[in-house]
Amino acid sequence: MKFIEGGVCAATGFKAAGVHVGVKTHADWKKDVALIVSETPCAAAGVFTKNVVKAAPIRVDLEHLKNGAARAIIANSGNANACAPHGEEYAERMCAAAAKVIGCAPDDVLVSSTGVIGQTLNIAAIEGGMQSLCDALERSPEASDAAAHAIMTTDTAKKEAAVETTIGGKTVRIGGVAKGSGMSHPNMGTMLCFLTTDCAISSGMIHEALLEAAAVSFNRISVDGDTSTNDSCMVLANGLAGNAEITDKNGDYAAFLEALQALCVRLAREMASDGEGAKHLVTCTVKGAKSVKSAETIAKSVISSTLMKAAIFGADANWGRALCAMGYSGEAFDPEKVNVSFASAAGEIAVCADGRGLDFDEAKAKQILSEHDVEINIAMGEGGAECVCWGCDITYDYIKINGDYRT
Amino acid sequence: MKFIEGGVCAATGFKAAGVHVGVKTHADWKKDVALIVSETPCAAAGVFTKNVVKAAPIRVDLEHLKNGAARAIIANSGNANACAPHGEEYAERMCAAAAKVIGCAPDDVLVSSTGVIGQTLNIAAIEGGMQSLCDALERSPEASDAAAHAIMTTDTAKKEAAVETTIGGKTVRIGGVAKGSGMSHPNMGTMLCFLTTDCAISSGMIHEALLEAAAVSFNRISVDGDTSTNDSCMVLANGLAGNAEITDKNGDYAAFLEALQALCVRLAREMASDGEGAKHLVTCTVKGAKSVKSAETIAKSVISSTLMKAAIFGADANWGRALCAMGYSGEAFDPEKVNVSFASAAGEIAVCADGRGLDFDEAKAKQILSEHDVEINIAMGEGGAECVCWGCDITYDYIKINGDYRT
Repeated sequence: MKFIEGGVCAATGFKAAGVHVGVKTHADWKKDVALIVSETPCAAAGVFTKNVVKAAPIRVDLEHLKNGAARAIIANSGNANACAPHGEEYAERMCAAAAKVIGCAPDDVLVSSTGVIGQTLNIAAIEGGMQSLCDALERSPEASDAAAHAIMTTDTAKKEAAVETTIGGKTVRIGGVAKGSGMSHPNMGTMLCFLTTDCAISSGMIHEALLEAAAVSFNRISVDGDTSTNDSCMVLANGLAGNAEITDKNGDYAAFLEALQALCVRLAREMASDGEGAKHLVTCTVKGAKSVKSAETIAKSVISSTLMKAAIFGADANWGRALCAMGYSGEAFDPEKVNVSFASAAGEIAVCADGRGLDFDEAKAKQILSEHDVEINIAMGEGGAECVCWGCDITYDYIKINGDYRT
Repeated sequence: MKFIEGGVCAATGFKAAGVHVGVKTHADWKKDVALIVSETPCAAAGVFTKNVVKAAPIRVDLEHLKNGAARAIIANSGNANACAPHGEEYAERMCAAAAKVIGCAPDDVLVSSTGVIGQTLNIAAIEGGMQSLCDALERSPEASDAAAHAIMTTDTAKKEAAVETTIGGKTVRIGGVAKGSGMSHPNMGTMLCFLTTDCAISSGMIHEALLEAAAVSFNRISVDGDTSTNDSCMVLANGLAGNAEITDKNGDYAAFLEALQALCVRLAREMASDGEGAKHLVTCTVKGAKSVKSAETIAKSVISSTLMKAAIFGADANWGRALCAMGYSGEAFDPEKVNVSFASAAGEIAVCADGRGLDFDEAKAKQILSEHDVEINIAMGEGGAECVCWGCDITYDYIKINGDYRT
């Protein structure tokens, strides 16, 4: 398994495009509609926000995915089409417009939107721009790049990646584009992620693999604790790699899952690292927990703590906030068995042993926490389970970005 | 029932003091130890943080409250005595030192600490300053003021209040001092609150009344979602008002509870309003919910949303974030029945009806949200229950304060 170039166009038979049609009227990133198309029909699956308030495109996707098949994904940024007039009607019209230029059925198209909530989507702009979007479709790294840019909101960097592995003697590729930034939290924070693969895999197994991969990647990041109305991760698998179709959890499934998880973890880390205004990627590893679930709950509580995030922003080794966040996570544990250290490329420093503060070199701690990628390492002393979660710091820019998002 | 002056010294028979002994070495507010003493023995009760990681003073208080009696409260700011070496030993020594100068048993003294976690408490400074603290004890508004200042950390204003009511023909007073600010969240955010009353009431009933009052006041505020290791609310009742002792939930209990709740709500609002760096007090009222519990969960989710808080900071009527936060609260409801309006002294404006955005006057909305006290009013259309919760916005100052708290 290795990372390769090409993003969402890495897999055989997939084309992509991203253009500006006019949904965004004020953003720095002008592209606002992306289209991803497979030459041939695909097994398809999606995982979506657990928020009770689901954006209209998600309700449409749940319908379109009932047969486990699709050929294309159309997505816009600049407007979330959530709690907005004509929501489902306009989401269906996006699918229909894409289907017309591609030449497939409307329910073979999946749809996503991201941006401000509660405002009417400029459907005329999307319909009016559909032909030029279709004309821009190609299979190239540049096309993947355009699609990645077209789904960005406050993201400061595009998110795309691809992996290649061997399954049943055949070269299989999986690629994707994603967007993250604010409102990102486990259970699908505002993130969109569109994955493509040429692996031959049944719709049941691709759904299963997507659930498993999301659970250890996108569901283990947090930017600000807000779970959005629009979060979606969807995958298309067209089978053009020519491997024997994966229809159960055999060795081929395991190989596919390994590659898919690696891809999703890469994209999830990029989302956390590019949390709105973030200056640090924070990796929290909890070891010695009673169970993976317990380790995950505790690690998420630590990376989600606003006080911990503010301390990381200040490069302040305020480990007491980590212990405090562990304590209100809802998990039972003995605080007097807990060890904590901070680490980065600049070294590692133990700050708490057996639940008590250690004397440590503050200058060294500051140096360690001044790196971009910092680690909070927690040993529980309760058992043998572990989990890694990713988050970011909270900065003045986060508040600036979110204090005036709509205007 | 009316609000009166005098704070924690308003009730007959209570003296207070606040002095600087040297625990704080860098804070703007120099007073760092407070003492509150009753002339006579008191029925006593406390409610404490639900965090698994409990500071040492709380573990000591739980012991000292087992007999439902106490005479004094000693508290320091500048150091939380949580996850710190010699925690319980030093908390006990604070009680013993206070008991010695007061002339009571050590287990008649309750103790609290607030400040940084994980550092050794300067117990020598507290013991060394105990006589001067005792010498400063008096029953006066100035003494209550001194105690209120001595427990402040990043609070920008002291928090004290008192109420007077009539129970069984006797004038009964309840007063208190409190501190709030960062790390404040329902289930006792970092808050300390010390209440005194001359009401004659059994230890069982004062505990019951404290639980009831805290549930609708301190447990309905949120500053940053972090539940601290040290949160404590304690009450001393010395019976000097001369009313017939309240020993069950009769009419006198109801009158006492009404006054206690009004006092606690006043103090809770002051805490929310003075959240670290806050520029706005946010009152979220949820009406038409299926149950009070449901209304409370939803209101808390809205005031706790970092994105909603950032929008309030920016005076941005981004009601979609309220709907989003409702949606991930864990409560089930029909988004298409939800109405939302924003209000303040500058007026009220409807922004969402039946789960869909309304066209509204953005300039008017901005004017409404530019007031210090702003309201988010939510109608669910699900039932007849309602709840009010209080929070604040998140600002650059919050991050500044918490990015470098320890140095």
